[in-house]
Amino acid sequence: MQHLLNHKVPLLLALCCIPLQHVFASNGNDSVIPQTFLWIVLTMIAARLGGIVEKIGQPAVLGELIAGAILGNMILFNIMWFEGMKSNEYLHFLAELGIVILLFQVGLESNVQEMKKVGIKALLVATMGVLFPFVLGTYLIGPLLMPGLSHNAYIFLGATLSATSVGITARVFKDFSILQTRESRIVLGAAVIDDIMGLILLAIVSSIVKTGFFSITHILQTIALSILLLAGGTIIGGMIAKPLSKWLSIVNPGLSMKLGFALSIGFVFAYIAHLIGLAPIVGAFTAGLMLDSVHFKHFEEPEYVSELKHAVRNADPQIQQQVQNLSQVQQAKHIEHIVEPIGHFLSPIFFVMTGLAVDASVFMNPQMLLTAFALTLVAILGKLASGFFAGRGVNHWLIGWGMVPRGEVGLIFASVGRALGVVDTMEYSVIVVVIMLTTFVTPPILGSLVKKTSHS
Amino acid sequence: MQHLLNHKVPLLLALCCIPLQHVFASNGNDSVIPQTFLWIVLTMIAARLGGIVEKIGQPAVLGELIAGAILGNMILFNIMWFEGMKSNEYLHFLAELGIVILLFQVGLESNVQEMKKVGIKALLVATMGVLFPFVLGTYLIGPLLMPGLSHNAYIFLGATLSATSVGITARVFKDFSILQTRESRIVLGAAVIDDIMGLILLAIVSSIVKTGFFSITHILQTIALSILLLAGGTIIGGMIAKPLSKWLSIVNPGLSMKLGFALSIGFVFAYIAHLIGLAPIVGAFTAGLMLDSVHFKHFEEPEYVSELKHAVRNADPQIQQQVQNLSQVQQAKHIEHIVEPIGHFLSPIFFVMTGLAVDASVFMNPQMLLTAFALTLVAILGKLASGFFAGRGVNHWLIGWGMVPRGEVGLIFASVGRALGVVDTMEYSVIVVVIMLTTFVTPPILGSLVKKTSHS
Repeated sequence: MQHLLNHKVPLLLALCCIPLQHVFASNGNDSVIPQTFLWIVLTMIAARLGGIVEKIGQPAVLGELIAGAILGNMILFNIMWFEGMKSNEYLHFLAELGIVILLFQVGLESNVQEMKKVGIKALLVATMGVLFPFVLGTYLIGPLLMPGLSHNAYIFLGATLSATSVGITARVFKDFSILQTRESRIVLGAAVIDDIMGLILLAIVSSIVKTGFFSITHILQTIALSILLLAGGTIIGGMIAKPLSKWLSIVNPGLSMKLGFALSIGFVFAYIAHLIGLAPIVGAFTAGLMLDSVHFKHFEEPEYVSELKHAVRNADPQIQQQVQNLSQVQQAKHIEHIVEPIGHFLSPIFFVMTGLAVDASVFMNPQMLLTAFALTLVAILGKLASGFFAGRGVNHWLIGWGMVPRGEVGLIFASVGRALGVVDTMEYSVIVVVIMLTTFVTPPILGSLVKKTSHS
Repeated sequence: MQHLLNHKVPLLLALCCIPLQHVFASNGNDSVIPQTFLWIVLTMIAARLGGIVEKIGQPAVLGELIAGAILGNMILFNIMWFEGMKSNEYLHFLAELGIVILLFQVGLESNVQEMKKVGIKALLVATMGVLFPFVLGTYLIGPLLMPGLSHNAYIFLGATLSATSVGITARVFKDFSILQTRESRIVLGAAVIDDIMGLILLAIVSSIVKTGFFSITHILQTIALSILLLAGGTIIGGMIAKPLSKWLSIVNPGLSMKLGFALSIGFVFAYIAHLIGLAPIVGAFTAGLMLDSVHFKHFEEPEYVSELKHAVRNADPQIQQQVQNLSQVQQAKHIEHIVEPIGHFLSPIFFVMTGLAVDASVFMNPQMLLTAFALTLVAILGKLASGFFAGRGVNHWLIGWGMVPRGEVGLIFASVGRALGVVDTMEYSVIVVVIMLTTFVTPPILGSLVKKTSHS
């Protein structure tokens, strides 16, 4: 071993010059992980400072998006430091985890029975909301604004414009605590159906581009699989969840098992959704929807509820009854309460990272920008029109605007189109700008609509 | 664009054969991330099923380690499926995040004034606990069991044996809710000091190996930096935290800001610790220790506390007083309560991943195993002896065993030694086995010691 050492003298001398922290960082990750801790802090600070927009009645998510966009474009002022965030894989992972947790929370707060009641309306809104932008984009605005492209390129453009991304709207509705309204239910239901339709549409347009026609078997298979997950998942899953939760509560009736049980179902559904080709968030939402407070009744009540009951054990019956009611509400909502901190920790990371992806330099190209503005207008009008198919007694504007945000699904369309050689770089950039604009324009408009509704 | 398409026909034909989910997975991560969701579920299931050991009075962490070790060695039965977990970067990241959160929680539950009271005892325990295994390993057991190595190789061996890793013990003490005992405080304090000593020791042995002597300036610098973080962090940080929390609570008095403020301080301290060369968990623990309930008094009280006060507003004074006391406890502990679900979600991932790293095939080499057993015995005896320096009125065995687990710090020593060409593969493997053994043997023994103490 001593002779080995002698051969390594140059290496050793080199090592002497390395500061201590680098000696410790024996492999690359040892440094990247603590650095990521700092990025997490930065997203948290950005998100919280962005939250100042709440003071002017705007949803906190808008502040998170803006804060992210500011950090992401500091490079324009020669501040390179934040570029490391964009390429940090762990942050992107936490962002994905965050949006899955958010939709799981939204599902938990939603009621499956109430969702069913608005099913037909949601189906109508979803169908029209896919149809209008698709037809307008493919046959009217595409050829008009971007002449000379192939018909397939217009089809992909139309498909891209049709796909709602529910993350933004769900977060806005959650920020304003209006997840229990009919409008919110219709939008959430329509967004799930929209995602399935997007999947079918992608299968159809991909087939047409690739072979000139499409296989009806494949389409039916896609529909069947999607329904199996969503309907089957809620029904069969609901049936399995009851005995499973009872058994698990016998193994360990505490908070850790309760949380582990709930999150496991959320993540498994997210994974299954991904396997089928749906967005993981659709799976997570379905899982949350399926889980009802009844699934957690065998677990221990929260410690403070027991303490509370003990504190009022000698009070008169009326107060005991009030405390009893309060306890029941606390017990029923306990699962939401314990998932909430995880959501508060992770979901802002998603929105800050979404803002971070905004590249302000694309706004320097006037022709492209004009095209993008026009397409955004079509994208918005198509969805607003769909809102009017939601029937009477609801705010059609709230529903229409709720369907406006495009997101990862639109990007998937554009990416597949690019991989197939149908969508060129210019068209891809335009699509990215449309997604940005719909993402940023929705929260403030939903905000003012909600304020107007609550005042009237 | 059409001509481009024609050139891509072979590509398109190839694409037709790819199942839908692969078309969607437009880049690698799109698949890895949902797959990671499934791994997270698996760690949660493994951790919770492992939790069955609680039924026989063992800490849950032991079950998590065993569950991980079982999954990690399924390859011996030709089940390859779980190998993907070992190489999943995101899981390793979540594990790191989990152990940082755990030590932050432990810090939050600890009281800085009470910690100071046991300071001298902790210093004695730490010093002896570093000295005994180092001297025994370097001058007695090393040359005896592994003859023919260089003196430097024995120095590294001794240094490796000296480094306590507090994660396991902290978790066991938390599992048994005995973080408020004097024994627990001494162990936690000693572990922090131990980590600083490890840092100094590494600097010394690295210098000796590299240059034959060591720079006293460098050592003093290391000590100064460490003290700056730990003492300075708690004092200066504590002074800044008060006005900062007040200001932040004005921006947003809600739960999200409260949590963001607390976690940000935790992660910043973890990062600073890493920069200095200390373990991030030492920083996170310090941050938690620094944060006192007084830092959160300006934030809103939890919703259920307000509801509770409202429910008993007409009760007689005695009950109102009881509820008032309960509310104050709830308000003070609220930050611990909201960090708890994040800990329950992430920290088992660390212990399952630690178990996963156990390679049972090393146990097939009898000579190496025998060496490892003997070294483990020395590693344990050295720490047990240090427990007797903790003064009167405490359980010395509990303290000694609390200091036994070796972990990442020992591995860092071994890795640096290997990078310097001093530690060979055989010695490295022996060290890994020693770490495994100390990790697995500690939880059950601490478990039975705690049970014995509470019975007597």
